[in-house]
Amino acid sequence: MSFNTFGHLFRVTTWGESHGPALGATVDGCPPGVPLTEADIQPWLDKRKPGQNKFTTQRQEADQVRILSGVYEGRTTGTPIQLMIENTDQRSKDYGDILQKFRPGHADISYHQKYGLRDPRGGGRSSARETAARVAAGGVARAALRALVPGLRITGYMVQMGPHKIDRAQFDWDQIPENPFWVPDVQAASDWAEYLDGLRRSHNSVGAVIEVTARGMVPGLGAPIYAKLDTDLAAAMMSINAVKGVEIGEGMDAACLTGVDNADEIRMGPDGPEFSSNHAGGILGGISTGQDVVVRFSVKPTSSILTPRRTITIAGEEVELITKGRHDPCVGIRAVPVGEAMMACVLLDHFLMDRGQTGGQRGQIG
Amino acid sequence: MSFNTFGHLFRVTTWGESHGPALGATVDGCPPGVPLTEADIQPWLDKRKPGQNKFTTQRQEADQVRILSGVYEGRTTGTPIQLMIENTDQRSKDYGDILQKFRPGHADISYHQKYGLRDPRGGGRSSARETAARVAAGGVARAALRALVPGLRITGYMVQMGPHKIDRAQFDWDQIPENPFWVPDVQAASDWAEYLDGLRRSHNSVGAVIEVTARGMVPGLGAPIYAKLDTDLAAAMMSINAVKGVEIGEGMDAACLTGVDNADEIRMGPDGPEFSSNHAGGILGGISTGQDVVVRFSVKPTSSILTPRRTITIAGEEVELITKGRHDPCVGIRAVPVGEAMMACVLLDHFLMDRGQTGGQRGQIG
Amino acid sequence: MSFNTFGHLFRVTTWGESHGPALGATVDGCPPGVPLTEADIQPWLDKRKPGQNKFTTQRQEADQVRILSGVYEGRTTGTPIQLMIENTDQRSKDYGDILQKFRPGHADISYHQKYGLRDPRGGGRSSARETAARVAAGGVARAALRALVPGLRITGYMVQMGPHKIDRAQFDWDQIPENPFWVPDVQAASDWAEYLDGLRRSHNSVGAVIEVTARGMVPGLGAPIYAKLDTDLAAAMMSINAVKGVEIGEGMDAACLTGVDNADEIRMGPDGPEFSSNHAGGILGGISTGQDVVVRFSVKPTSSILTPRRTITIAGEEVELITKGRHDPCVGIRAVPVGEAMMACVLLDHFLMDRGQTGGQRGQIG
Amino acid sequence: MSFNTFGHLFRVTTWGESHGPALGATVDGCPPGVPLTEADIQPWLDKRKPGQNKFTTQRQEADQVRILSGVYEGRTTGTPIQLMIENTDQRSKDYGDILQKFRPGHADISYHQKYGLRDPRGGGRSSARETAARVAAGGVARAALRALVPGLRITGYMVQMGPHKIDRAQFDWDQIPENPFWVPDVQAASDWAEYLDGLRRSHNSVGAVIEVTARGMVPGLGAPIYAKLDTDLAAAMMSINAVKGVEIGEGMDAACLTGVDNADEIRMGPDGPEFSSNHAGGILGGISTGQDVVVRFSVKPTSSILTPRRTITIAGEEVELITKGRHDPCVGIRAVPVGEAMMACVLLDHFLMDRGQTGGQRGQIG
Repeated sequence: MSFNTFGHLFRVTTWGESHGPALGATVDGCPPGVPLTEADIQPWLDKRKPGQNKFTTQRQEADQVRILSGVYEGRTTGTPIQLMIENTDQRSKDYGDILQKFRPGHADISYHQKYGLRDPRGGGRSSARETAARVAAGGVARAALRALVPGLRITGYMVQMGPHKIDRAQFDWDQIPENPFWVPDVQAASDWAEYLDGLRRSHNSVGAVIEVTARGMVPGLGAPIYAKLDTDLAAAMMSINAVKGVEIGEGMDAACLTGVDNADEIRMGPDGPEFSSNHAGGILGGISTGQDVVVRFSVKPTSSILTPRRTITIAGEEVELITKGRHDPCVGIRAVPVGEAMMACVLLDHFLMDRGQTGGQRGQIG
Repeated sequence: MSFNTFGHLFRVTTWGESHGPALGATVDGCPPGVPLTEADIQPWLDKRKPGQNKFTTQRQEADQVRILSGVYEGRTTGTPIQLMIENTDQRSKDYGDILQKFRPGHADISYHQKYGLRDPRGGGRSSARETAARVAAGGVARAALRALVPGLRITGYMVQMGPHKIDRAQFDWDQIPENPFWVPDVQAASDWAEYLDGLRRSHNSVGAVIEVTARGMVPGLGAPIYAKLDTDLAAAMMSINAVKGVEIGEGMDAACLTGVDNADEIRMGPDGPEFSSNHAGGILGGISTGQDVVVRFSVKPTSSILTPRRTITIAGEEVELITKGRHDPCVGIRAVPVGEAMMACVLLDHFLMDRGQTGGQRGQIG
Repeated sequence: MSFNTFGHLFRVTTWGESHGPALGATVDGCPPGVPLTEADIQPWLDKRKPGQNKFTTQRQEADQVRILSGVYEGRTTGTPIQLMIENTDQRSKDYGDILQKFRPGHADISYHQKYGLRDPRGGGRSSARETAARVAAGGVARAALRALVPGLRITGYMVQMGPHKIDRAQFDWDQIPENPFWVPDVQAASDWAEYLDGLRRSHNSVGAVIEVTARGMVPGLGAPIYAKLDTDLAAAMMSINAVKGVEIGEGMDAACLTGVDNADEIRMGPDGPEFSSNHAGGILGGISTGQDVVVRFSVKPTSSILTPRRTITIAGEEVELITKGRHDPCVGIRAVPVGEAMMACVLLDHFLMDRGQTGGQRGQIG
Repeated sequence: MSFNTFGHLFRVTTWGESHGPALGATVDGCPPGVPLTEADIQPWLDKRKPGQNKFTTQRQEADQVRILSGVYEGRTTGTPIQLMIENTDQRSKDYGDILQKFRPGHADISYHQKYGLRDPRGGGRSSARETAARVAAGGVARAALRALVPGLRITGYMVQMGPHKIDRAQFDWDQIPENPFWVPDVQAASDWAEYLDGLRRSHNSVGAVIEVTARGMVPGLGAPIYAKLDTDLAAAMMSINAVKGVEIGEGMDAACLTGVDNADEIRMGPDGPEFSSNHAGGILGGISTGQDVVVRFSVKPTSSILTPRRTITIAGEEVELITKGRHDPCVGIRAVPVGEAMMACVLLDHFLMDRGQTGGQRGQIG
């Protein structure tokens, strides 16, 4: 990861600002011969698109992706794939106030301190709108994974909103696409709708925890010591706007376990090793074991709220600020497809790296 | 980060196995002219060194660092600094049993699956002994930071052992070096000693949470979008052995906050902006604000325990395994100086990157 | 350099095919605050643009560059700059024949062997049209260098066409923009026009040597050992289509010199060290000395010629092929602005890297 | 390539100074399971070792390589391989004079300007002694290539010394190891011995051209556009001390060819495509075709000569300097194994990268 690029062999460089003419992703290192059209990418963008229900910002963006290069007659050629999304709703009148005032919780002050200037329109480069480019790149990664790792399924979902966690006993994969929160617990979906509606009406917002699981994994992905699979997943998720914590498997709660509890015991199943539990989140020593890879990340509450907060101006004056505009009361909702996209990109990248170094040959067991 | 290297301009490549002749770090990109001798690095290694009290492994290692290159007459020359630590206590008789058996919770099985072979002596490359090389590299980073960012202080400490958290009201920086747990709460230090002693005697182990704080920060460090300061810190900490979660500022608990609570309001102080709180952990949009940078990471319990656990052999046979050897009941203790070292390396790297891109000139406020 | 990206801190990723909808460059790491508009970039593209005289291909391309991101109110913001050039003249009817046949001297066969498929339209990614993106990126680099290294001048020119070399005694900087060959020797310009016209009419083509000189250099640029300034310049130039050789200073002829001849003796001038000669091409040990940096590269003759050549088809049949289309009899002419652009990118990149590592402070002499 | 590291997946970081305690290479990304002992590496170091005849420096160095990590029971484990060579002959009394004086043609002045200080002992980091580490790394690359690309042969040899070129009609592969110049022309070997002896006695030195050929190539290696195989070879060779020019195939003379001459026509042979000639040097569009890869580079004459040259001191005084010490009259001789090592590293790296991106599957012909 460096500046605006992530990945080792599958390299994604995103570009663009919230209110510029367009944004996108330059995807380099994609394997050749992968079937790919805009129709393979668009559904993931649609999943992330704003304005779909009252819980997401009412900004209207078509978010239509165009492939400008790297594909010939419906298949990738191995050359860079340029994905462009034009910004159709660039009205910036809502943001005039924040040219001089630093919004608390936003990157306004830090960008100003670092660069000496900034594009204030909608947060410029620091806007979560950048994640649309990630989702598009994730669509490419998914298309390649479909060919290279058959059976792999990457699914993101919310497991916590504010203090409310899902009931793991009620976990139902099929519920995830059925509610606006991508939550696998039908009761939580109902409760959270009411809770969030109340917050929105009180001009407030709230944080969330998203979990992304990869099922149907292959063992051997991860490049120890400093490009471990969990290391790269942690970086990928932490790079998403508003994320403040990342967990693999047991996560922060690993601190509470004893060694006896934590040991994922191993048995021999019909198709290879099986584990009695998955505290490790599918990764040991930075390398996948074939178990499900489980990542969680927290998203802080939307900083743009209609409740006045104290701040300062560039000139150093102390003022109060209400961040008008069209904002999500819980940005965590739209972070779900972003987390999935990052997982897809990291897994493809590690598949390619591993194939490069080891040829993808596995040590036999049994 | 790639394979065994981390960093962008300040690049550290660690090498070596637990029971090979030596291990070390190749440190590239260090600024020239930094005063540096082995005596600047050795104290940090001594802090991490095993066998110092009954709570850390009784393996005896001198952990004497030698500088083999990159320093002339006590100052860095700008060329690569090779740091070598010879392994003096390489007895591997304790480990004979694990050549065929995969230790649960260890990387034995995943290394075997990926590489088709592995160095079984003490965990080989996946041993936490690799962190000695990080600590040595961190010593170089600290020496450079002393010259470049005067006033910067990096301090690591434990904030949780098993279910027991420190009392933040009793936080005392001066207590940290006064107890074997690097804990800033004198009562916790006493309670934890008793708790851990019991675990050790029952052949068990436990996890922990370490916090690392950088005080005296400068604003402007961090390279959005994919080399954000928090992104690189998350990667750096997650790459440490046994780490399962990383948090910046409010961390996973950010999910529980509302937007009103979470906003770190800004006022104008005599020396520049001041914040009413630090939920952000000193980083906004991936860039440091000048507030303290606060990172936490969880360490899972030591997987090597004397309690028998079920596992399999390379041949696929199901067996029980007791992991003998000399092990820490809470590896989190010795992760404290490792976390500090990673913080030092990341901050120096970002200082250099920022100086490269922006010249280190800051946007004025007031 | 990796896949489609070059540079360390100033990183350029080019994308796009000859006959796709667009091509461009994603420019990352540009310093903030640099005045930049399309008008700063367009003149360099115009210099490279085809169809300007009878010695360059008659393909008509507007080559209008658009800045899609990274600039706000006429100044760079430090975020990625997306430069897009739409392909307006995409007629591919001329190229139908080469879908099955490999053109000798072209990358058709190697792309097919590597990727299993290729975009045959105009050479796809391997077309020299990709260099338009480099020239656009070079325009950004020049704009930044103008602010950071005042007095620096980068000038490219032809020094050889076929067997005909310029007369160094007649070297005149002012002649360079006055003729279609960017040649600093007025007599050569006249002779070469006649020579090339003859070649073109006989359905043939010819190679060339281009020299690029940077005057007004600063010392200290270059990152030994493997990102030496000459190393990166060699890579940059060799990456240009059709280039087969790169020289720094004395170049290949350094083999003929004795040590006595080759020593660039040093004296003390009013403004610092002065050299009696410049066999080194301004670089010692990979680091600039402040002398002019002088790079040369050879460009092979255009492979697309109307004279029939023997080749094979994908099916393995032996055939004869005439490469129709609109081609330059000497692609070296249009390589001049490309070489300049690469020089600009490398120098800016090394300026930023050096500023990062050393702070740009120089060892004093005298 | 970045600072002291080169390679993408097979990454080599060299470290160490001419007169420090040791120097070496950290080799990362080597495939696992490769048979490797010191005995696989030592012969290449012996080939480069000084003091073997009157044409190479009389400095006595054992140049014994030690493998400190990454190998277990005679096979690589996939983890970093540390190669250390201790400096046994560190006497620096010969070099006292050059602490204050900049040797013409050496990196003394540029290192001083960049870093503000330098290790003057034997040139410190800029000494050609660094190439011992490259040769050791090349030994690892050759061991891996032996397993991965059976039939590949990499051979370096001199083709020019001073103005004297070999007679290509007399080219004999078997002669190369039979003379001190690694020259494939028995008459040249004899003539050059006399020529060089004269130069040495007159306190002078001379340049050379080395050619490295890879026979038994596979097609498909090279990562366009900016990590083309020829781009990376050019960078690798230009990074060697004293190299001033690099050529692929026809090289600088490509400028003299017409398109008709330059076209390497293709026919269909029993085992696949065959070419009528190899002006391209085995690379088209940055990708290997399966033909021999042919690289040449020039080495300037040894700058350390006993003839006095004018220079300045750090204080700015003009002085005369004779560079005493033990030096090669033609450093090009010892550059032969260095060029071979760089070729081996680049080919292995590209083999792994290609296997990563494409799976090493080739487009069929016929």
